[in-house]
Amino acid sequence: MNATINAPRNDEALVLGALRANIDRIDRELIELIARRVKVAADIGLAKRVTGKPLHDPSREDAVAQSLSGEASRLGLPSRLGRELALLLARHGFAAQLQQSPHRAGHEIPRDSEGFRLARWEPGRHTIVAVGEARFGAGLHEVIAGPCAVESEAQIELAADHARACGVRVLRGGAFKPRTSPYDFQGTGMQGVRWLAKAAHSRGMACVTEVLDPAHAAEIASHADLLQIGARNMQNVPLLRACAQTGKPILLKRGAAATLRELLCAAEYALLEGGQVILCERGLRTFERETRNTLDLSAVPALRQLTHLPVIVDPSHAAGKDELILPLCRAALAVGADGAIVEMHPDKCAALCDQRQALRPSQLREICDVVHLVRYDS
Amino acid sequence: MNATINAPRNDEALVLGALRANIDRIDRELIELIARRVKVAADIGLAKRVTGKPLHDPSREDAVAQSLSGEASRLGLPSRLGRELALLLARHGFAAQLQQSPHRAGHEIPRDSEGFRLARWEPGRHTIVAVGEARFGAGLHEVIAGPCAVESEAQIELAADHARACGVRVLRGGAFKPRTSPYDFQGTGMQGVRWLAKAAHSRGMACVTEVLDPAHAAEIASHADLLQIGARNMQNVPLLRACAQTGKPILLKRGAAATLRELLCAAEYALLEGGQVILCERGLRTFERETRNTLDLSAVPALRQLTHLPVIVDPSHAAGKDELILPLCRAALAVGADGAIVEMHPDKCAALCDQRQALRPSQLREICDVVHLVRYDS
Amino acid sequence: MNATINAPRNDEALVLGALRANIDRIDRELIELIARRVKVAADIGLAKRVTGKPLHDPSREDAVAQSLSGEASRLGLPSRLGRELALLLARHGFAAQLQQSPHRAGHEIPRDSEGFRLARWEPGRHTIVAVGEARFGAGLHEVIAGPCAVESEAQIELAADHARACGVRVLRGGAFKPRTSPYDFQGTGMQGVRWLAKAAHSRGMACVTEVLDPAHAAEIASHADLLQIGARNMQNVPLLRACAQTGKPILLKRGAAATLRELLCAAEYALLEGGQVILCERGLRTFERETRNTLDLSAVPALRQLTHLPVIVDPSHAAGKDELILPLCRAALAVGADGAIVEMHPDKCAALCDQRQALRPSQLREICDVVHLVRYDS
Amino acid sequence: MNATINAPRNDEALVLGALRANIDRIDRELIELIARRVKVAADIGLAKRVTGKPLHDPSREDAVAQSLSGEASRLGLPSRLGRELALLLARHGFAAQLQQSPHRAGHEIPRDSEGFRLARWEPGRHTIVAVGEARFGAGLHEVIAGPCAVESEAQIELAADHARACGVRVLRGGAFKPRTSPYDFQGTGMQGVRWLAKAAHSRGMACVTEVLDPAHAAEIASHADLLQIGARNMQNVPLLRACAQTGKPILLKRGAAATLRELLCAAEYALLEGGQVILCERGLRTFERETRNTLDLSAVPALRQLTHLPVIVDPSHAAGKDELILPLCRAALAVGADGAIVEMHPDKCAALCDQRQALRPSQLREICDVVHLVRYDS
Repeated sequence: MNATINAPRNDEALVLGALRANIDRIDRELIELIARRVKVAADIGLAKRVTGKPLHDPSREDAVAQSLSGEASRLGLPSRLGRELALLLARHGFAAQLQQSPHRAGHEIPRDSEGFRLARWEPGRHTIVAVGEARFGAGLHEVIAGPCAVESEAQIELAADHARACGVRVLRGGAFKPRTSPYDFQGTGMQGVRWLAKAAHSRGMACVTEVLDPAHAAEIASHADLLQIGARNMQNVPLLRACAQTGKPILLKRGAAATLRELLCAAEYALLEGGQVILCERGLRTFERETRNTLDLSAVPALRQLTHLPVIVDPSHAAGKDELILPLCRAALAVGADGAIVEMHPDKCAALCDQRQALRPSQLREICDVVHLVRYDS
Repeated sequence: MNATINAPRNDEALVLGALRANIDRIDRELIELIARRVKVAADIGLAKRVTGKPLHDPSREDAVAQSLSGEASRLGLPSRLGRELALLLARHGFAAQLQQSPHRAGHEIPRDSEGFRLARWEPGRHTIVAVGEARFGAGLHEVIAGPCAVESEAQIELAADHARACGVRVLRGGAFKPRTSPYDFQGTGMQGVRWLAKAAHSRGMACVTEVLDPAHAAEIASHADLLQIGARNMQNVPLLRACAQTGKPILLKRGAAATLRELLCAAEYALLEGGQVILCERGLRTFERETRNTLDLSAVPALRQLTHLPVIVDPSHAAGKDELILPLCRAALAVGADGAIVEMHPDKCAALCDQRQALRPSQLREICDVVHLVRYDS
Repeated sequence: MNATINAPRNDEALVLGALRANIDRIDRELIELIARRVKVAADIGLAKRVTGKPLHDPSREDAVAQSLSGEASRLGLPSRLGRELALLLARHGFAAQLQQSPHRAGHEIPRDSEGFRLARWEPGRHTIVAVGEARFGAGLHEVIAGPCAVESEAQIELAADHARACGVRVLRGGAFKPRTSPYDFQGTGMQGVRWLAKAAHSRGMACVTEVLDPAHAAEIASHADLLQIGARNMQNVPLLRACAQTGKPILLKRGAAATLRELLCAAEYALLEGGQVILCERGLRTFERETRNTLDLSAVPALRQLTHLPVIVDPSHAAGKDELILPLCRAALAVGADGAIVEMHPDKCAALCDQRQALRPSQLREICDVVHLVRYDS
Repeated sequence: MNATINAPRNDEALVLGALRANIDRIDRELIELIARRVKVAADIGLAKRVTGKPLHDPSREDAVAQSLSGEASRLGLPSRLGRELALLLARHGFAAQLQQSPHRAGHEIPRDSEGFRLARWEPGRHTIVAVGEARFGAGLHEVIAGPCAVESEAQIELAADHARACGVRVLRGGAFKPRTSPYDFQGTGMQGVRWLAKAAHSRGMACVTEVLDPAHAAEIASHADLLQIGARNMQNVPLLRACAQTGKPILLKRGAAATLRELLCAAEYALLEGGQVILCERGLRTFERETRNTLDLSAVPALRQLTHLPVIVDPSHAAGKDELILPLCRAALAVGADGAIVEMHPDKCAALCDQRQALRPSQLREICDVVHLVRYDS
C-alpha cells in the first residue's frame, strides 16, 4: 500500500535526480573551461610582463563584460549574469597574471577600483609630493603646524616663529573658515592668506591654507604652496577641479562620513586635471563624545593597499583636545603615515576658534622632537 | 625605421590578440553552458512545484559548492573560485526556479540568508504570534504599553487601569532593568514581575517583561506571557535559548548597532529551540543628538523582504521625547509595522527612569485612538 | 587613648563643617537672588508681550554674558564661569518670560539655537514656500518627482508626461550630477537644465535641479524654479550664498552625517542672503546595508520643534530600492512631512544612474493617489 | 505728532530699561557671591589635603544638589534649576580645590563620572593586573596571542609552541564562540577550555578564554587565568557579576557601539563585586568597509584621562586583515596601550573562523620582536 503511495514520489525523486545529475555534469564542464581560461590568462600575464605592459587593463575588462552580458541577453539570460561572470573571471584571471609578477608582496590588488584608476595602488609605486622643502611620501615624517585661523598679522608672525624653531617646514593657517554657523568667526579672507604666505616664505617655510570657493583658487594659489580641501568639501567637484588646475598640490581631507574608496574617487577628479594630491585622515563622525571625531588610524595601512598617494593624519580635529595630540602623532608615525598636520596657537587662551584642541608652542616642540628623531635617524 | 622598431610590438600585439581570442571563445562556451544549466534549473523548479517541495534547498546548494570547490582544487585553481561560481549559479538557478512560481510579487529572495533559514522569507508565509488576546502579524495593529519600570504595586495597578481603558491588550513593565551604571535604579526584580502579571491578568490583559539572566527565564515565564530580550542582549545566545525553551514567545529587540541580518540570525537561535519571535526595531545609535536613537522605520519594509516574522516598533526609546511618540506611531503603522511598544507612566513626573520619554495617559489614549481606528476599520 | 588620637580628626571635622555651613549659607542666598531675577524676567516678558516685542533677544543675552564673564575675571574667577552662569540664567529667565505667553503649546524653545536665529522655531510661525503651483509648508503634501538624471530631451519629456498625469506639480531632474567617481556619467549639464525647464513649464509644472558650482547658480536659476543643494554640499557656503542670491527658493538636503542643528545652521547662511529654504531629510550613513542610507523620519517632528521652515523627505536615495518607496512615503506623510521627492524613470531598465531605486510610472501613480487623497480630503 | 505716537514706546523702553538694570544688579551680586563661595571651596581643598581626605566627595555633592533643588522648589522655581546650579558650583568649586593640589598634571577630573566611581581616574593611581607572569598596567607591553577558536588539542598545542617561542605570556583561545548565525561553528566548549589550559600551563603561560553564560563562569575560572567578556556582552550584567565573583580577573571588550563611559560603567559592575578588570578597545562599527571595524586608538589616551584601569587593544578583530596587524600593534604601543591581543593560527589556511585576520606564526614573531624591544629596553 505504502509502496503504491510512494510510487509517484519515487518517480519524482528519479526525475529530480536525473535533472541534478545533468546539472552536475554541466558544472564540471564549467570549471574545466575556467581552468583553461585561467591558464590562458597566466600566459597573457607573462606576455605583458615581457613587454612591460601594465597588468591591469580596464578597457579590456569592460569589453569582456560587455560581450558576456550581450551573449547572456542573446541566450535569454539576465544581462547581469554576464556581468557577474565577467567580474568573477576577471578577478581570478588577474590573480593568475599576478602570480607571474615579481612584485607580489602579499598584496591584494584593490578590487572595485575602477573609480580611481590613476590613484590606485601599483606594485612598487610611491608618489612623492614636494611642498617647499618638505617631501610627502618620501619616508620622512613631516609635521605641518600653525593656527586654526589666521587672526592677525602679529599672530601668524609669532606662530611662524614658533613653528620654524621647531623645525616645521610647512606652516598652516585658515583664512577662509568653513564654520557651521554664519554667526561664528568666518576668517580674515584673502588678507589672511597674504599674511600667512609672508610669515612662511620670509622664514623659508612653505604654507597651506583652505580654499572654499572655486572662484578663489587661482588667487590663493598665487600665495600658498599647498591648497587644502576640507572634509566638508571632499566631494565638491568644481572645487577639486579648480584647485588642481592651479598647478599647486592639494591636501585632500577625508570627509567625516566618507569611505576610503570615496576619498580616492575624489582624489581622482584632481588627478585627472593633472593635480597632485596628499590624502589626510581626520576622524570619522561617530557616537563617541570623549573625542570630537574618531581618528581612523587603520585608514593609513588600508590606504597603502589601495593607492600610491601620500597619506598624512590630522589628530587635532579628530581628538579635539590638545593633550591627546602627542600620543596620536606617535601612533600616526608608528602606523606608517607620511606626516601629521596639527593646530598650534602662540597664545592658546586667546584663540578665536577650536581653542580646546590648539597646542601650545611647547607641546609642538615635544611633538617635533619625536618626529625629527625619526626624520633624521631612520 | 619606425617600422623596425615597432615590429616586436606588432608581434606582441599578435600574441596578445591570439590569447585574447582564445579567452573570448572560452567565454562564449561558458555562457552557453550556463544558459543550459539555467534551463535545467527551471525544470527542477517545475518538478518541485508539482510535488509541493520547497524551492530552496540549502543542503543541495552546499553539496554543489563542495563539489565545485573540490573540482577547482583538483584543477589547480583556488577552491574559493569554485565556491564563488557555485554562489553565482545558485542565485541565477534559483531565480529561474522562482519564475515558475506564482507567488513572485516583485519580491527578491533574500540573498546570503543561510544564517537564518527558519526566519527567512518565503512566498505567501506570514507568521502570527498570539499573546493573550493580541495577535502580532495578523494585520492588526497592537499597542503594547506600560511603564519603563515596575516601581511599586500601586504604580503598576494604576498604569494597568489606564492602559486597559485605552484598549491595550499587552501591558509592559520592566522588573529587571538593564542600566548603564550600577548606581542607577536596578528594578524591583521578581516581585515586580508578579505585580505586573497580577495587574495585567486581573484585567484580562497579557504582559511582557525583560529577562536579563538565563537562570531567571523559567520563573519569569511562569508569570509573563511574552519575554523581552533587550537590545543589549540581542546576541546573548544562552539567554535566547533559555527564553525560547520556556515555550513563551519572545519580543526580540534589535541592537542599537545590529544589522537586520544579525537580528534575523539572533532570532534563528530562538526558532531552532522551537521558540516564537516578534521582532522589534528600536533605533540605531548615531551621531544625532536631537533624538536618543535614530528610529530606522525603513527596517520594517526591508524586514518584510527578508522574513515572515512579525515586526513592531519601539518609538519611545528611539525618540527619547514623549511629544515625538504619536507622529512616530502614525509613521510606524503607515510603513506597515504590526504594532508598537510605548512607555506610559501614570505619573510622569515621578517616573524613576526614562522620564523624558514617558507618555502621560492622555497621550496614550490619543495614540490608541489612531491605532484602534485602523484596527477596527481596516 | 583613642580620644587623644581622634582629637585632631574632630578638629578637622569641625573646620570642614564650618566651611561647609558657610557654603550652604551662600547657596541659599544664591538661589534666593535667582528667584528674584526670575520674577524680574517674567515682568520683562509681560512688558514685551504688551508692546509686541520678540521675547528672545540675542543681543541682550550676549551683553549679559559679556558682562558676567567680565565680572568673573575681575573677581579672579575663570571668565567661563561667567558665561556658564549667564547661559543658565538666560535659559530660566526665558522660560519665565514664555510662561507669560499664550502660544506655549507644550513646546520647548530650541536650546543652543544661537547658530540659526532666523531659522529657529517661534510660536505660531510656519513658513510657506511657493514653487509654481505647489505650496510647501501649507499642510498640503507635495510630491516632487522625475528622473535622477535628465538623460535626453525625449526622456525628460516622457517623464514629464507621466508626472503630470499623476498630478505632480514640481518636476525633478539632475543635469549636473555629483558622482562619486569621475568615470561615472556626469550629466547633461546646462542643456539638460533647459530640457527639464521646457518639459516642466510647457505642462504647467515647476521644476527643480541641483546646482554644484556657485558660478552656475544664476544661469540655472533663470530656468529652474527651485534650486537643489545636495547632501554633499550642505555646508558649501559659497554655493548656499550664490543660490540664495538668485532669488529662487532652495531645496536643502541634509548631509548623510549632518546633525539637524548643522542643517539649520546651513539654512541660516541662505536665509541671511534673503533666501527661502525647504529642508529635506534623505537618510543617514550607517552600517546597515539592506537600505542605502537610514532614513531618519524622526527628524521631521524633531525639526518641527526647532524651526518654522518646511520639511520634506527623500525616500528614494535613502531606501535605494523602488519597492520601499511607497511605504516610506506613507510614513513620511504620517509623521508630518510637507511632502516627498522621489525618483521616477519612464523606462526604469534604461536608467543611467541609480536605476535600482527608480520608480516605474505605475508606482508613482500609486504614491500620488495616496498623497492626493490627503491633499484634497484633509 | 510722531512724538505723541512714540511716547508710549519711550515709556516701554524706560520700563524695560529699569527692569534690565534690576537684572544687572542681581547678576553682579550673584557673581560676587560665587566668588566668595569659590574661596571657601579652596579652603576646603586645603583642609582636605592637610588631612589626606579625597578631594572629590560625591555624597556631599549630592547633598548640595538636593538642598538647592529643594530650595528652588520652595521658591517656586523649577527644581531642575537648583540641580543645574549645584552642578555649575560643584565644577568650579572642585577646580578651586584642585588648584591647591600638587597632582594637577594638566589633567581634567572626569566629569559626569558618577556612574563609575571605582573605575574613575585619580591622581597618581595606576592599577596593575597580574595574569600569570604577565603584568598589565605596569608599563610593560604584553602581547596576548593564540587562535580565534580552540579547534582541537593538536591545534592548540601547536599554537602554544609558536606563542611561547615568541615570548608570549598569555595564550588566548575561544572555546565557547559567540557566532552571528547558529549554523556557524560554535566552538569546542568546556573540552576546549581544558585543552587551552593544559597547553598554556604546561609551557608556563597563562591563558584567557571567553565566557558566554554566567552558569559557566565558575567552571571556566577553575581552568583559565583571565576571563574574557566579549564585545557583544559588554553590558551583560549577570555575566559581569558571575565572572567577577570567580576571583579571576576580567578582560572586558568595548562594545562595537559603546561609548567609553559605558565601558567604564560596565567595568564598575565587576569592580563592585571585587573583580579586577583589564579594558580592551576592539573597534567601532562604522560605515567603512576596508576594515572590519574602525579601531579607535584615541580611546587609549582618552581612557587614561578617565580611569586607572589598564587598557589593551585588539587589532585583529578591528582590522580583519592579517597584514594590518603589525602597523596597528606599533600604533597601539605608540599611543600608550598596555598591550595587545592578537589572533594567530598555526595553520592559517585551515582556520575554522576569522581566517582572514589570523596571523601566521612568522607574523606574530615580527610583532613580538617590536614589543619585546620595548618591554626590555624601556
